[in-house]
Amino acid sequence: MDEHSLIQTHFAPLAGPGGLRLLDDAAQMTPPAGHDLVLTADSFVEGVHFPSGHYGGDTAERLLRTNLSDLAAKGARPISYLLSLAWPKSVDTKWMAGFAVGLRDIQQSFDFHLLGGDTVSTEGPMVISATLMGVLPTGEMVQRNGAAMGDDVWVTGCLGDAKLGCDIVLSKAITPKPTPDDAWGFESAYWRPDIHLSLRKILREKASAAADISDGVLRDAGHICRASGVAMSLNFDALPLSNGAELWAEGQENIVRAKQALLGFGDDYQILFTSAPEHRQSWFDTARKNGLKLSLIGNVTSGKGVRCLDVNGEDMDWPDRGYSHF
Amino acid sequence: MDEHSLIQTHFAPLAGPGGLRLLDDAAQMTPPAGHDLVLTADSFVEGVHFPSGHYGGDTAERLLRTNLSDLAAKGARPISYLLSLAWPKSVDTKWMAGFAVGLRDIQQSFDFHLLGGDTVSTEGPMVISATLMGVLPTGEMVQRNGAAMGDDVWVTGCLGDAKLGCDIVLSKAITPKPTPDDAWGFESAYWRPDIHLSLRKILREKASAAADISDGVLRDAGHICRASGVAMSLNFDALPLSNGAELWAEGQENIVRAKQALLGFGDDYQILFTSAPEHRQSWFDTARKNGLKLSLIGNVTSGKGVRCLDVNGEDMDWPDRGYSHF
Repeated sequence: MDEHSLIQTHFAPLAGPGGLRLLDDAAQMTPPAGHDLVLTADSFVEGVHFPSGHYGGDTAERLLRTNLSDLAAKGARPISYLLSLAWPKSVDTKWMAGFAVGLRDIQQSFDFHLLGGDTVSTEGPMVISATLMGVLPTGEMVQRNGAAMGDDVWVTGCLGDAKLGCDIVLSKAITPKPTPDDAWGFESAYWRPDIHLSLRKILREKASAAADISDGVLRDAGHICRASGVAMSLNFDALPLSNGAELWAEGQENIVRAKQALLGFGDDYQILFTSAPEHRQSWFDTARKNGLKLSLIGNVTSGKGVRCLDVNGEDMDWPDRGYSHF
Repeated sequence: MDEHSLIQTHFAPLAGPGGLRLLDDAAQMTPPAGHDLVLTADSFVEGVHFPSGHYGGDTAERLLRTNLSDLAAKGARPISYLLSLAWPKSVDTKWMAGFAVGLRDIQQSFDFHLLGGDTVSTEGPMVISATLMGVLPTGEMVQRNGAAMGDDVWVTGCLGDAKLGCDIVLSKAITPKPTPDDAWGFESAYWRPDIHLSLRKILREKASAAADISDGVLRDAGHICRASGVAMSLNFDALPLSNGAELWAEGQENIVRAKQALLGFGDDYQILFTSAPEHRQSWFDTARKNGLKLSLIGNVTSGKGVRCLDVNGEDMDWPDRGYSHF
């Protein structure tokens, strides 16, 4: 099948109105009046961001979810995306059908559409890049740079499950869906991280800064601190691990180091945000109303950098604080 | 240097206002009222779209020019872009400085800015993806699907120089700039294809369909035909080769096949467009006023597909009509 036929077969059915059935060189789009566009781009490399050989729908869905989490953290609603695929020459393009099903599922879950992109072949590992677009009322994007001294620091959901899921996924043959023995939901956490779009309005109203956690909780907290010109003090015991992750850590030789490894891995894509203490009750109410776990994990201070305090309020030793590509 | 420092050193100085100094998870942007956004994405794979090992500014500029040509063909003015870099682990990140200079040069030439992106590492060849955004008055995008029976078929500039440039570039060691012996401008045509943004207004007013030539003139003409539900008849002798390319072809054993190879290569990124014959004089006037070569190469007919006629008006045999990735 040639490039044109591949695109028309697998990807054209996913195109929204401005995507022109993927028959044009470009797409067109107009954000609603009174709204800003929010844009984010992420790349996945085979063997780094997803297991080698895993070319199916899981990978497609994971790629889009990691971008959706950026939009959610900024308080935006997703509307469309562009996709660039560098497909390995050695891999049968039949896999594209499964890949497209993953795209379709996530598009349907979050009501956004494909606008365009590019499909090329490579002699190397697969590289997939997505550019996602969302909208929000003009001027309301939640940036990283608004954290103020005295603010609370919060995080959604649980951290660490994605690391355990990744370990499981890497240790076994390619499976299209989580295996039935994924009792703790670790694999699901890796492939299908939670996207908290339901928080977008309250984030815009009450968060002073926000980011999704992709590099590890301390590292992403550091990004907010750097952009805001503040420091943070986080309480180790307040950092939320799931029951499954707690249980796993307790089985390890060094429980603290094990927990740090989970928290520093960073692929959970939960939202880390800061908010003035006067909003504390609103956040607790929102969490209860949405059946969502929200944890108060520390506070914003003056100075630079991120401290993590143990149960005695002492600075913890934390050797490997997160992921860096270079 | 870690990922954050690399981005802040090389890419943050290129960011426009909505790029938030590349310190955030996302960028924000608002197209001017009364305008549509036009979006295009292209990926380059090392060894396919640029020579292996050529990590400098030339490659950066070529990547953005191939996207700018899409915007130009649609009648849009570029405003911003996102960039995803999968950088080979084996390649010193010092090259990024040169890469960023290429980005800066082309941004300055065409007055648009970086909004964001992603930088990751790969064990394979470099893969670079850009998503470019342009604007134009609402509803005025020149699509591929408007070609009508009886329309003229036009092309800007000359075709074929990029193929000769590519052959030269592939045959020699890495050079950051065209060598002084590039008398015919072949290497320049490969690295820095012309971008005809000055035509964007007349294209919106008088072109019925347009596309840039990236896959070869016959193949890209075919894209317009398919989208428009028409056929085209092109005259081989009217397809514009530069003096240098003509001379090269005349030195080959089979001159016709040599010319076909040049015309079918497709990396010239000239604009192919259709327009009603009543506009013919306007196009000639525009060409003269802008010092631009415009060639009338054929006409739109009923039916399907693209015919190429020889000097006797007979269908030509043309074995390899263009580039396909799969």
